[in-house]
Amino acid sequence: MNYTERNSKYRNIINNSLDEALSVPFVPYKLAEAMRYSVKAGGKRIRACLTLGVCDMLRGNRKMAIRLACGIEMIHTYSLIHDDLPCMDNDDMRRGKPSNHKVFGEATALLAGDGLLTYAFEYMLDAGLGFNSLNYYRAVAEISKRAGVCGMVAGQIADLEAEGSGECSARKLEYIHLHKTADMLCASVLAGAYCAAYTESQLRALSGYAEKLGMLFQITDDILDYTGDAELMGKTLGKDKSQHKLTYVSLMGVDNARSTAAATAKEADREIINVFGTDCGYLRDTIYYVLNRSN
Amino acid sequence: MNYTERNSKYRNIINNSLDEALSVPFVPYKLAEAMRYSVKAGGKRIRACLTLGVCDMLRGNRKMAIRLACGIEMIHTYSLIHDDLPCMDNDDMRRGKPSNHKVFGEATALLAGDGLLTYAFEYMLDAGLGFNSLNYYRAVAEISKRAGVCGMVAGQIADLEAEGSGECSARKLEYIHLHKTADMLCASVLAGAYCAAYTESQLRALSGYAEKLGMLFQITDDILDYTGDAELMGKTLGKDKSQHKLTYVSLMGVDNARSTAAATAKEADREIINVFGTDCGYLRDTIYYVLNRSN
Repeated sequence: MNYTERNSKYRNIINNSLDEALSVPFVPYKLAEAMRYSVKAGGKRIRACLTLGVCDMLRGNRKMAIRLACGIEMIHTYSLIHDDLPCMDNDDMRRGKPSNHKVFGEATALLAGDGLLTYAFEYMLDAGLGFNSLNYYRAVAEISKRAGVCGMVAGQIADLEAEGSGECSARKLEYIHLHKTADMLCASVLAGAYCAAYTESQLRALSGYAEKLGMLFQITDDILDYTGDAELMGKTLGKDKSQHKLTYVSLMGVDNARSTAAATAKEADREIINVFGTDCGYLRDTIYYVLNRSN
Repeated sequence: MNYTERNSKYRNIINNSLDEALSVPFVPYKLAEAMRYSVKAGGKRIRACLTLGVCDMLRGNRKMAIRLACGIEMIHTYSLIHDDLPCMDNDDMRRGKPSNHKVFGEATALLAGDGLLTYAFEYMLDAGLGFNSLNYYRAVAEISKRAGVCGMVAGQIADLEAEGSGECSARKLEYIHLHKTADMLCASVLAGAYCAAYTESQLRALSGYAEKLGMLFQITDDILDYTGDAELMGKTLGKDKSQHKLTYVSLMGVDNARSTAAATAKEADREIINVFGTDCGYLRDTIYYVLNRSN
């Protein structure tokens, strides 16, 4: 199976599982609608696909991986809904469609985000007793940490503060994206590993890979934004950064950003190739897929 | 130890544990400040005290109970921060102090809420591997469910919709408070039981008790609000409901509300007295403490 086929297979699994997960009885109708609207608008499910890809690479428990992958997508979606709110980035559009609060109103969007974040944990934990695996809980704990106040939320507040201050340094930019983007990618690959018999050196390699992949995502996003290929941007992981001051392109210029992207891709590759050898084809293809978006 | 002494002992334990829990290194300063501001403004910690009370009643693992109780208080606090936001109730004050967004701004308040909700799970799950108890995870799952889209968040959206529509029925009011208030009280008592060797009939009794106690809370809150004892209100669990249309007093008049409160207190008592006998003194005292607030 080539990269595109495998991606599409994973995506179908995830989309079907999310559909089922979000058809919960007893949830108030408007809340359920608002949650489904943004989850269904989800793009390439790169995080969820990585969880399944790592689980398959290590011959892990696919059912566990699907649960965790769906939880991660719900958490990612909540972060986008809250990010778009008027008090945050005030974005009217998300992936070519009106953002959640434009359709359902601010209060419902806020609660849809809160609902998705809480439901992610409910959905993951609910299955835990059936799996009866301490490593499954280890995965849920990892996800909570990477999504939280030392992870994604830390990245969001740093981003907010940087925008407000107009401050622009390479270190600040790296901090923001390490937490805002790379931490959840890291949660995704580690969750896949926790579904299998993993070694500590595999975990280290996967963390290193996710960190570099997160950086690569952000750099290519910034390049795409700069080159103004709005149509392609609509399909990418990130969102329109044009109103932001601090980007890799603004910091180093587009040519340097391109060569940094290529170097970061190679670094991501180096993190895994010696540890997983020929087994990590899917993870490697993901790197070059992300890199080539901006070429 | 009498009720007041025991309450104060529990509260000290919880406040010290929350202080420690919220002194996490690597959290961005402003985010940590905003989270601590609202958690420290916490009132009587009734939910956390109930968790410890039930755990002690059933001679359970106190360390497990403290972790869960702190997680519950963080989740409760996040819900208050988001509830106060301009797009929700737009409350400038909370427990006699400026609300979170008045001090830190809307974006930071939003993220402080998101951070507290996520950190609650991180904090609870982080300890899970050490406790090595499936019942501990059962408790975290219960908390996520009661806080979520069939629980507290469901109550919040129902409240929002009722306010918007001006709709006023006893059934609607009961739905709102069953979920907005009683569900987290239920999580609190069940969490305490999961820290001990519990029976199914004990869980049923505790759920029934929490449901009635939640109703009692809301009725007495509405009475306090009506009688306008603002000073006392500042110390209570609920918040100023004066701008809301739908209250027990508006629905049935203050005299009927008072007699309903007394009847609900008796019902709460009946749920536990036959199951726990003389062991449930603390739970019973809590009922009459809540009832007597409004007399």
